[in-house]
Amino acid sequence: MTTTDLTPAEREPVRVGLIGAGRIGTSHATILRNRVAGASLVGVADARPESAAALADRLEVRAHASPDSLIADPDVEAVVIAASTPAHADLVVAAATAGKGVFCEKPMALTLADADRAVAAADGAGVPLQVGFNRRFAADFAAARAAIDAGEIGTPQLMRSLTRDPGLADPAAVPPWTIFLLTLVHDFDALLWLNPGADAVEVFVMADALVAPDYKSAGLLDTAIVTIRFDNGALATAEANFSAAYGYDVRAEVFGSRGMVTAGRTETSALRLHTESGMSGPTLRGDVEMFIDAYTSEFAEFADAVREKRTPAVTGHDARRALAIALACIESAQSGSTARVDPGA
Amino acid sequence: MTTTDLTPAEREPVRVGLIGAGRIGTSHATILRNRVAGASLVGVADARPESAAALADRLEVRAHASPDSLIADPDVEAVVIAASTPAHADLVVAAATAGKGVFCEKPMALTLADADRAVAAADGAGVPLQVGFNRRFAADFAAARAAIDAGEIGTPQLMRSLTRDPGLADPAAVPPWTIFLLTLVHDFDALLWLNPGADAVEVFVMADALVAPDYKSAGLLDTAIVTIRFDNGALATAEANFSAAYGYDVRAEVFGSRGMVTAGRTETSALRLHTESGMSGPTLRGDVEMFIDAYTSEFAEFADAVREKRTPAVTGHDARRALAIALACIESAQSGSTARVDPGA
Amino acid sequence: MTTTDLTPAEREPVRVGLIGAGRIGTSHATILRNRVAGASLVGVADARPESAAALADRLEVRAHASPDSLIADPDVEAVVIAASTPAHADLVVAAATAGKGVFCEKPMALTLADADRAVAAADGAGVPLQVGFNRRFAADFAAARAAIDAGEIGTPQLMRSLTRDPGLADPAAVPPWTIFLLTLVHDFDALLWLNPGADAVEVFVMADALVAPDYKSAGLLDTAIVTIRFDNGALATAEANFSAAYGYDVRAEVFGSRGMVTAGRTETSALRLHTESGMSGPTLRGDVEMFIDAYTSEFAEFADAVREKRTPAVTGHDARRALAIALACIESAQSGSTARVDPGA
Amino acid sequence: MTTTDLTPAEREPVRVGLIGAGRIGTSHATILRNRVAGASLVGVADARPESAAALADRLEVRAHASPDSLIADPDVEAVVIAASTPAHADLVVAAATAGKGVFCEKPMALTLADADRAVAAADGAGVPLQVGFNRRFAADFAAARAAIDAGEIGTPQLMRSLTRDPGLADPAAVPPWTIFLLTLVHDFDALLWLNPGADAVEVFVMADALVAPDYKSAGLLDTAIVTIRFDNGALATAEANFSAAYGYDVRAEVFGSRGMVTAGRTETSALRLHTESGMSGPTLRGDVEMFIDAYTSEFAEFADAVREKRTPAVTGHDARRALAIALACIESAQSGSTARVDPGA
Repeated sequence: MTTTDLTPAEREPVRVGLIGAGRIGTSHATILRNRVAGASLVGVADARPESAAALADRLEVRAHASPDSLIADPDVEAVVIAASTPAHADLVVAAATAGKGVFCEKPMALTLADADRAVAAADGAGVPLQVGFNRRFAADFAAARAAIDAGEIGTPQLMRSLTRDPGLADPAAVPPWTIFLLTLVHDFDALLWLNPGADAVEVFVMADALVAPDYKSAGLLDTAIVTIRFDNGALATAEANFSAAYGYDVRAEVFGSRGMVTAGRTETSALRLHTESGMSGPTLRGDVEMFIDAYTSEFAEFADAVREKRTPAVTGHDARRALAIALACIESAQSGSTARVDPGA
Repeated sequence: MTTTDLTPAEREPVRVGLIGAGRIGTSHATILRNRVAGASLVGVADARPESAAALADRLEVRAHASPDSLIADPDVEAVVIAASTPAHADLVVAAATAGKGVFCEKPMALTLADADRAVAAADGAGVPLQVGFNRRFAADFAAARAAIDAGEIGTPQLMRSLTRDPGLADPAAVPPWTIFLLTLVHDFDALLWLNPGADAVEVFVMADALVAPDYKSAGLLDTAIVTIRFDNGALATAEANFSAAYGYDVRAEVFGSRGMVTAGRTETSALRLHTESGMSGPTLRGDVEMFIDAYTSEFAEFADAVREKRTPAVTGHDARRALAIALACIESAQSGSTARVDPGA
Repeated sequence: MTTTDLTPAEREPVRVGLIGAGRIGTSHATILRNRVAGASLVGVADARPESAAALADRLEVRAHASPDSLIADPDVEAVVIAASTPAHADLVVAAATAGKGVFCEKPMALTLADADRAVAAADGAGVPLQVGFNRRFAADFAAARAAIDAGEIGTPQLMRSLTRDPGLADPAAVPPWTIFLLTLVHDFDALLWLNPGADAVEVFVMADALVAPDYKSAGLLDTAIVTIRFDNGALATAEANFSAAYGYDVRAEVFGSRGMVTAGRTETSALRLHTESGMSGPTLRGDVEMFIDAYTSEFAEFADAVREKRTPAVTGHDARRALAIALACIESAQSGSTARVDPGA
Repeated sequence: MTTTDLTPAEREPVRVGLIGAGRIGTSHATILRNRVAGASLVGVADARPESAAALADRLEVRAHASPDSLIADPDVEAVVIAASTPAHADLVVAAATAGKGVFCEKPMALTLADADRAVAAADGAGVPLQVGFNRRFAADFAAARAAIDAGEIGTPQLMRSLTRDPGLADPAAVPPWTIFLLTLVHDFDALLWLNPGADAVEVFVMADALVAPDYKSAGLLDTAIVTIRFDNGALATAEANFSAAYGYDVRAEVFGSRGMVTAGRTETSALRLHTESGMSGPTLRGDVEMFIDAYTSEFAEFADAVREKRTPAVTGHDARRALAIALACIESAQSGSTARVDPGA
């Protein structure tokens, strides 16, 4: 457990700059500051300088006037990108080109060309590029992968991954295809990662606007089932919905020739209450509550990778593969037919 | 609970004849004889008279030389059909035409025409016709439906039903499309039943022969994911596999606008063992082990329906609806595209 | 599973007479009639003949004017005693002396002298004598014992058994010491049975009237913790309360040198509901709901033992051992000190 | 959640010195350094200066030649005491007298006189004194208490708390009465805390040396059941064992007039594996693994209490109350009878 291990390397924490002072950026900043011994937050930038200034003030770190300024700061060894999605790829390229280690929230890019460009920039600069697929760092998901690697369930045949968000705050603010590009991209990565060595071949989408039907005409899909075929034969579903009444729900199930492994839970803790009404327990309400340890571990991994100048556990290539599935989903949703997944280079 | 309730009506159990002395017929016979107070098994028939004779001898009931003989026996008030699948529809017609109450194992028919014929025969004769969708009688599935009826989860948006059998004994003996017509038909009925008032509109199938790949050329599919769109917007998956290493696995999940309900378990009992290896528990290995109480309840319902001359809880019309989905799946599996579900009359 | 096994022996069910037409007698009658293939209920008696007549009428069996008349009936092969507790021992002696197989609800006796007398009568007559410790026949309890026999948890060191009843209907109707003699006697048997080969040595009781404090002066204890030391070193607690708001609760836990095994559950089924309020599930509300399969199995065992003229799985000697602990508890409750458990012959 | 909340107060972390560089001291140091934003570890001392030096070197903080030196350091605002048990009380007195906020690992003292002396010192100096009853900060235990405070289970009637350690490394190194003074003292605090407003009145102990019987003559007890009566009528058991094959096991159950609440789990995560052998999951192996979030929260609470100059959530008085139960247990273990719990002032 990183948090109880004191290696000499931790004595010189990696100096990290954060781009993006929104909800997730603030959460990342807090976790970096309070829980990641191997990293030290030294600066904050945002497309809106006043947001950066406010967060930097609270954190007592340097506020940058712009992302470029932060990237150019020689005091910054590594950059964590939690900016708005369309800016991701360019920021990755800029930070990598400046020789900084890069952590980018998912999705790293919205087109394969941008993804390839980002990966090429990091490869060219020889800097670590990690992408924010945090589920891989959750204890149960990591143990699921370990069980699969150990052959406990044989060859995957049927897989499932799902994401249900606790509420759709403002449908008007949700860009088209968000459900595939921002939400299910987590599930696509999880499915690829839990089916080691296999590639996604084709997808089929059934989706609808059931939470906010009035916004369907504006391109909003809030409920989707994706079926995926992998080149090792495994069949998978990825499922998402934007409004779970009981909270935040992320689970995975992999059934193979020798068994099944499941990860994910809906309960906040082991608390159970028994009353005249029956048995009950509290449910998880948000992503940070569910994944705070996973976020901690992914940033610890990032700091280690930067310090050790090595490839991190989640790469830009992984982001490219998950994106390719998301883009195929958009094609399938438009055509009503199956769509091929771009195989990459 | 039927088994602890002694109503006067139970004093005269319905006199039942069984057609089909195979594995499930024998199980049904035993349950009818030992656990269903409202029914009395009086005779057995089978396409192979020697099978009928052997079972009848063990049960000390009359052996019939043929299904027709059993149907014609005036001592038989009601007929339970557990014969080979292709014979189902004709036997339903024959029994109904003879004025007998009819219980038919799923699938009731393999074509819509046969299903319509069977339903028409029962309607014409005014006899109850029940089909063997036993999951509806399992305590947790019944409670799930009750919760949905009570509005606890709002309108269904995402549904899932799955069936995993513990082993594929002889792939050569499995007729083509079995996975849709015999296995997933249970899931199709469960999904229709857990989405009250809605109809299935279209399906899409991804399927393969992963358990016994050598038999794929002979038409065997042993692993399948079906995606279904309902006319109330709900999207569903139904999933099956013919070889679960850990046993028999049947589960359902319904996610709606106000919550989620789940049914099904993999554990045999509440036993939990903790050792140096961790925590463990035994898993269910077979359908009878999992569903013995459900089988008991479905036959109690059948006996009650016959005695009370009323429509049973699962009808021939329900069987027709589930069959229509299965047939659409075959079409989708062949075309690689979505297929429409026959809406019926 | 007895219910799906058709052995030739079942063709001639054991002819059983029931003494006791109260709540549990009626439940037993129904289970015997509807679910136990190896037994056939042929008569009912009760200290109040009108109760016997009413139940016999509903069941269409013979009503006896008295327990003696039923015992004397040559058509009765075996007797199930569910009469009032003080009558148990004499009825066991009478039935055994008449050469009938005997099943007696717990407690078989209220004094060691009576218990010895009952055992001696059955031994002298060479008839099977079974006592109603139904927990042994619950699937999870039976699996727990099997795990212990297999050495999975090593030597028991810490044990726990508990009983919580769903409600105390009428405190005025509860005889003194009921909590030990009628309720915890189940737990004492369970602990003895789950610690094979060991004997209870001493007990210590803390108890009170917390549910119905006004009745404490009349000798009612409704809440108790018993600590027991066994001669193999194992320490155990047995715990009871007469008014569980959430229903009926029976559980056991055995911790040993190599692991732990637990049995018992509070949930009705695998149903789980997730709503804005969190996760919930229904709880078991009564003994028959929890133990119907166990009751079925214990009567199947009784019928088999009578038919096979062998010692049943639960004996009069077992009842004597559990009673000895209950009597030591009364002594401890009175003295406030530990009390020795009578070791028997 | 403290870790994601950035209050201005956190900008000036409390400067903490640690006394005790053993296993738990090292764990506390790491957690303080890496996860507690409100605290800053500035120095380490130990009765063995070389241990302090080694840990201080790894942590890059100041090594003190002695606990006294650390306490005297004006740079140290607050002291965390994780020294050997017999030294606790004197160190509390010394640190409090020096005007430092004090956190002391349990047990704070081994005699009531020492406990009173420690409390008086902190009260006299007007400094916060917190004791390391970490369970109160575990999410499920905290939620259990909240449910009790909310009246969800009514008045407690039956309670249970247990501790099972994963292994007894060296029986020869375990001082007599450790099971009560160091292990079960956690359970005594938990039971007091989960029965708000009530006091323990009397205890009864059954205990033995079952893990390491050869050491019984030297006074080692490794297996114990304690029964406790509270002045509100509630009856409780506290149970401990020094060698659980499956790992670390801490659980609590409170049954009241209106329901039951349970806390504690044995599983590492939500991971579940299903194979031919059945269902399984990994178990927790150590206290830090189980309680890392609780340790983090208790130190966050301590830092807040020091900063805000207020009484912390767990006080020296609480430690005194739990100790009084432990001392009564020793008396009961020696006498074989019940023992009264010292009521305090």
